[in-house]
Amino acid sequence: MRKLGAAILGATGAVGQRFIQLLDNHPWFRVREVIGSHRSAGKTYAEAAHWILNDNPPAAVAGLAVKALDDPINSPLIFSALPKEAAMTRELELADAGHVVCSNASANRMLPDVPLLLPEVNAEHIGLVDVQRRQRGWTSGALIANSNCTVMPVVMALKPLLKYGLRRLHLVSEQALSGAGYPGVASMDMIDNIIPFVPGDEQKMEIESRKMLGYFDGEVIQTLDMVVSATCTRVPVLDGHLVNISVELDEGPALSSIVDDWRTWQAADPIPRLPSAPEYPLQYLEHIDRPQPRRDRDAGRGMMTSIGRLRACPILGYKFAALSHNTVRGAAGCSIMNAELLATQGYIEGFQVAEAARVT
Amino acid sequence: MRKLGAAILGATGAVGQRFIQLLDNHPWFRVREVIGSHRSAGKTYAEAAHWILNDNPPAAVAGLAVKALDDPINSPLIFSALPKEAAMTRELELADAGHVVCSNASANRMLPDVPLLLPEVNAEHIGLVDVQRRQRGWTSGALIANSNCTVMPVVMALKPLLKYGLRRLHLVSEQALSGAGYPGVASMDMIDNIIPFVPGDEQKMEIESRKMLGYFDGEVIQTLDMVVSATCTRVPVLDGHLVNISVELDEGPALSSIVDDWRTWQAADPIPRLPSAPEYPLQYLEHIDRPQPRRDRDAGRGMMTSIGRLRACPILGYKFAALSHNTVRGAAGCSIMNAELLATQGYIEGFQVAEAARVT
Amino acid sequence: MRKLGAAILGATGAVGQRFIQLLDNHPWFRVREVIGSHRSAGKTYAEAAHWILNDNPPAAVAGLAVKALDDPINSPLIFSALPKEAAMTRELELADAGHVVCSNASANRMLPDVPLLLPEVNAEHIGLVDVQRRQRGWTSGALIANSNCTVMPVVMALKPLLKYGLRRLHLVSEQALSGAGYPGVASMDMIDNIIPFVPGDEQKMEIESRKMLGYFDGEVIQTLDMVVSATCTRVPVLDGHLVNISVELDEGPALSSIVDDWRTWQAADPIPRLPSAPEYPLQYLEHIDRPQPRRDRDAGRGMMTSIGRLRACPILGYKFAALSHNTVRGAAGCSIMNAELLATQGYIEGFQVAEAARVT
Amino acid sequence: MRKLGAAILGATGAVGQRFIQLLDNHPWFRVREVIGSHRSAGKTYAEAAHWILNDNPPAAVAGLAVKALDDPINSPLIFSALPKEAAMTRELELADAGHVVCSNASANRMLPDVPLLLPEVNAEHIGLVDVQRRQRGWTSGALIANSNCTVMPVVMALKPLLKYGLRRLHLVSEQALSGAGYPGVASMDMIDNIIPFVPGDEQKMEIESRKMLGYFDGEVIQTLDMVVSATCTRVPVLDGHLVNISVELDEGPALSSIVDDWRTWQAADPIPRLPSAPEYPLQYLEHIDRPQPRRDRDAGRGMMTSIGRLRACPILGYKFAALSHNTVRGAAGCSIMNAELLATQGYIEGFQVAEAARVT
Repeated sequence: MRKLGAAILGATGAVGQRFIQLLDNHPWFRVREVIGSHRSAGKTYAEAAHWILNDNPPAAVAGLAVKALDDPINSPLIFSALPKEAAMTRELELADAGHVVCSNASANRMLPDVPLLLPEVNAEHIGLVDVQRRQRGWTSGALIANSNCTVMPVVMALKPLLKYGLRRLHLVSEQALSGAGYPGVASMDMIDNIIPFVPGDEQKMEIESRKMLGYFDGEVIQTLDMVVSATCTRVPVLDGHLVNISVELDEGPALSSIVDDWRTWQAADPIPRLPSAPEYPLQYLEHIDRPQPRRDRDAGRGMMTSIGRLRACPILGYKFAALSHNTVRGAAGCSIMNAELLATQGYIEGFQVAEAARVT
Repeated sequence: MRKLGAAILGATGAVGQRFIQLLDNHPWFRVREVIGSHRSAGKTYAEAAHWILNDNPPAAVAGLAVKALDDPINSPLIFSALPKEAAMTRELELADAGHVVCSNASANRMLPDVPLLLPEVNAEHIGLVDVQRRQRGWTSGALIANSNCTVMPVVMALKPLLKYGLRRLHLVSEQALSGAGYPGVASMDMIDNIIPFVPGDEQKMEIESRKMLGYFDGEVIQTLDMVVSATCTRVPVLDGHLVNISVELDEGPALSSIVDDWRTWQAADPIPRLPSAPEYPLQYLEHIDRPQPRRDRDAGRGMMTSIGRLRACPILGYKFAALSHNTVRGAAGCSIMNAELLATQGYIEGFQVAEAARVT
Repeated sequence: MRKLGAAILGATGAVGQRFIQLLDNHPWFRVREVIGSHRSAGKTYAEAAHWILNDNPPAAVAGLAVKALDDPINSPLIFSALPKEAAMTRELELADAGHVVCSNASANRMLPDVPLLLPEVNAEHIGLVDVQRRQRGWTSGALIANSNCTVMPVVMALKPLLKYGLRRLHLVSEQALSGAGYPGVASMDMIDNIIPFVPGDEQKMEIESRKMLGYFDGEVIQTLDMVVSATCTRVPVLDGHLVNISVELDEGPALSSIVDDWRTWQAADPIPRLPSAPEYPLQYLEHIDRPQPRRDRDAGRGMMTSIGRLRACPILGYKFAALSHNTVRGAAGCSIMNAELLATQGYIEGFQVAEAARVT
Repeated sequence: MRKLGAAILGATGAVGQRFIQLLDNHPWFRVREVIGSHRSAGKTYAEAAHWILNDNPPAAVAGLAVKALDDPINSPLIFSALPKEAAMTRELELADAGHVVCSNASANRMLPDVPLLLPEVNAEHIGLVDVQRRQRGWTSGALIANSNCTVMPVVMALKPLLKYGLRRLHLVSEQALSGAGYPGVASMDMIDNIIPFVPGDEQKMEIESRKMLGYFDGEVIQTLDMVVSATCTRVPVLDGHLVNISVELDEGPALSSIVDDWRTWQAADPIPRLPSAPEYPLQYLEHIDRPQPRRDRDAGRGMMTSIGRLRACPILGYKFAALSHNTVRGAAGCSIMNAELLATQGYIEGFQVAEAARVT
């Protein structure tokens, strides 16, 4: 099976680097183009990128010449880690030009025909790609977004509870530094300190969660009718967003039933067999002091959501903590898994996932 | 004016050290006895204490010989930083022996005749000392507690809102390390990490807040009829507990009215003139990313509560963040201020606060 | 090939846990017994150990019953993560009883017949096992130690320079928290702070480095005649000891020659093919701000030493920085690799490493 | 006594803020002008400055309008916290225009006629101001620099040892984040990490220390003939640079003599009576794990240097650790104290320090 070439927009930034790290040795996709700022253009990736992850950039990418944002792109598949302003028009242009664009940018997330795709939660939203193509006259192109990184652990944990009726949701996050990009938060703001505010994230949590858990009626997403109150704070943790969640349900399941729901929950085939998918996307931790960002963020190679501390909430009924790796499951890893799902569903023209590959 | 001699129980621990630091050069009180474990007894304080605050122990205390817990105590006034188990019987014995005991321990906080005193919030609860003396047959002795350190910023911020009717309260704390004592939390648990659980504190927040905001009817405290849901987490911050608070009120005041309430709020005389009292106990910070533990914990020499981010909560109506220094206002500083209030009200036998001193 | 059963002494501590993590899925060895304190004895490992590494204990070990230190041990191979006092006599007893004991404890390191083995540096010191067996009347038993975790990056980096003549060595370390065990250093000592002292380590660096780089004459180790001055400090880093090294050589090689020496350096066969060995044990990093503990400690699955910043020292001639993962290469990983070397050299009775296994 | 008006160049940056904080309620000087970037010009200081120190900007400065760098300045006294490039010509222009400029910038430090003034170390270097005025034709103007913040604890600690003959000096620093300004080091580089390199500082330590300890012959500074080897590293500490120092002396004093030298050491009058001066500029700490940045940086209101761990060095003879607050004694505080010394010596035209003020 020949690997599909992929381009990374915003390749030198924090999420761009995570894309490159996660795509190293990916069974289906191969990074063939890296796109950066005008300042980076022309340099090799190793020269242009101040690599902030562990070790060094993968050898296969280190030598690629960085392209500028308006240079032509050859790869059918594009992963976007662009800043919001740059993403807004460029992603649509590239989809219009026939590319499948899987974006981590917030710019186009709330367009009515752009799915906020999270395979284990709302795989059926992929149908918006058909709407997109019909309405915009695109043939091979598509634009698929993933959600804000703090929304991710929330909707992952709530999905199995949807059947009980989600009524009200109170969220207080403790978010990692990598969510702010690089250089992001100054160290002088974060040693011996926390910051009780993360620009823009509270609104995203209140809006995106309702879209992601919404119902696709064949034309549009009917957002979930749920009241959400979010508070977002920044803590001195490198990776891993933890959210303290209180939730009110229509029904009153036993705590043990909810734990069972989480432990046994799996999306339909082929999702658990996608290369980036963990077999079970959720784990419930018994220890009363878990999940912890450093110890649990890498579960399932950063793609699992860890839940703990389920107990009664005197106000809303239930409360618990949920945690995901914010630049893996919450950003690059989710985009890649979205592309994997698109590939298996035939949305990437000319690219066929071999049956054998799909099953392994 | 001659200073009143004071003894510190648990003098070598984290809160004990804070007592000693705050009492250095106190205008009314002077540390005359330090009580530690049997292992420390007989050594000088400088030898016995592994001093964890800045600089070194004050010279006036460094040379005192540490007494054992069951040694006789001469000082009329006692500050207790004992661990819970040690506090339970010893504090009552000492009060029974005629000492005024101001305790930071949780052991006896919920006894019906022990006030959970916070001068700006419930100075009238001091009347429980009369109940105590009558019921227990004490003459000069008394036992006064201060609350859990995380409860402190909550009740401080809520006190001016009491007039609007407090109905439901949802709390998520981000607590500093010094709240766990010394050595307390291992550094290997706290670098690049948070812990979503603090043993015992959630229950204390739910119980103590209702007692502190309750009504003293002359005999007992009628606890406030308010539903409280608390989640407590530990973050890598040295001092300063921040609490994310959502609150439901009977009335619907404008946000600006609430800010005004906080800014202008003062307790009745003589409380704002007590040596440890800030003139205004609350400050509201306009900057959207405040309060922050490191930058705001020392406001008013650690005795002010800083509030910020007041905004609408889609679920409970109002939400905001409040912060206090947990070992000053939340522990030793509050105990000392409680003793100051007791002194001005004539509860410390044979000790008269000079009018001049009181006014300065 | 049947795996050799191994026992872990001090299995619930910080280094004990690292042994268990690194031996999970080891191709030759399998953890069959875990030995802890009397308090842990009888519980399952999962119950007894407060697991401080990421995720949870490996399933294969979680269910093992913890034995007490004086319970009989069946495994031919023993890894010791005992505290110094406990190690002193127990390790010798177990070697006397016929076990091959690979120890990370400092207790017996400087015994004249105990090798301080680091395969890439002094594989020939393994001959001390023959001396040991002859002098002590042991047949199958042996006691092999690995060095202090801070000495490790120093001797690894100096080994290729030995040919130039090592004369004087000035060391200033910046050591990670895991080197102090768990709970080890209190978080209140390490947030916004460093500690300019690590008990015992300066002396170990001055003594152990000279033994490790010494010459085995068939009977004893002739320690290297080199003057060493060490300063050890503790920094708020989880894993990875960095040492700032200045060195005086007899000869005056060019800086580029030294870099070449490091980059090409390999121990003799079969060492580079041992399961835990990196192909090249040293890497020289060009970036002027490397090595960094967090970004470089996991190189070669924690078994490589990273070096950077080689430049002239106006006093001693050369200076540079070297870094190793202190609980992998500097502790458990080194012990395991020592056992692998012993196995290939026939020192573990009844255990034959299949040629095929050895070559892979 | 009327206070002298002072202007702060680079007032909104990290060191500029420290100037403003330290000059609040200064007995002799008063901040009257704040100069920032063109982007800040016209705004009030409170609007323009992202205040990073504790609490908020002093009220007296918060309302001042920020001036642009080329706006005319009225204050006779100027404190410069400019970046290097901006400082290079502007500081000389302002001195030429008659201002006394006390600069923390590195730009002009090594000009032969600019003193690197540190009152307790080289007060006599102030004579260079006469050379300056004569050679450059300045009448009231002057340019005085203070050294790099890491050099400061080194020369402070070495000054009393000068009498033993300083021969060779080996330095390894562990430097705080505030030394890199704001935003400075990214938090993603500093959590669970250290950086073994600080741009430019090693060279400054090797050069500036020799100038500061040099001899002023009435015309130029004869730099000290001492070999210096420096390694500079960055650690996750907010304030306080610690330097591990090994030193070779001509003579061989007893360790106890050196400790005595440090403890009793005082500069000549009026230096110990300057408003910013500690009575004794050095303290030797007995505890083996001191000095520590967080616990000792504020000694003497940040103006003392703390020393500890004096012991024999097998290579150079003596080794110890020294620590100063890098933005107080190492930057703004030193500049202010330099200005105080200039004032007492009559170098600030038209400003007379009242004798009474000087003595208090």
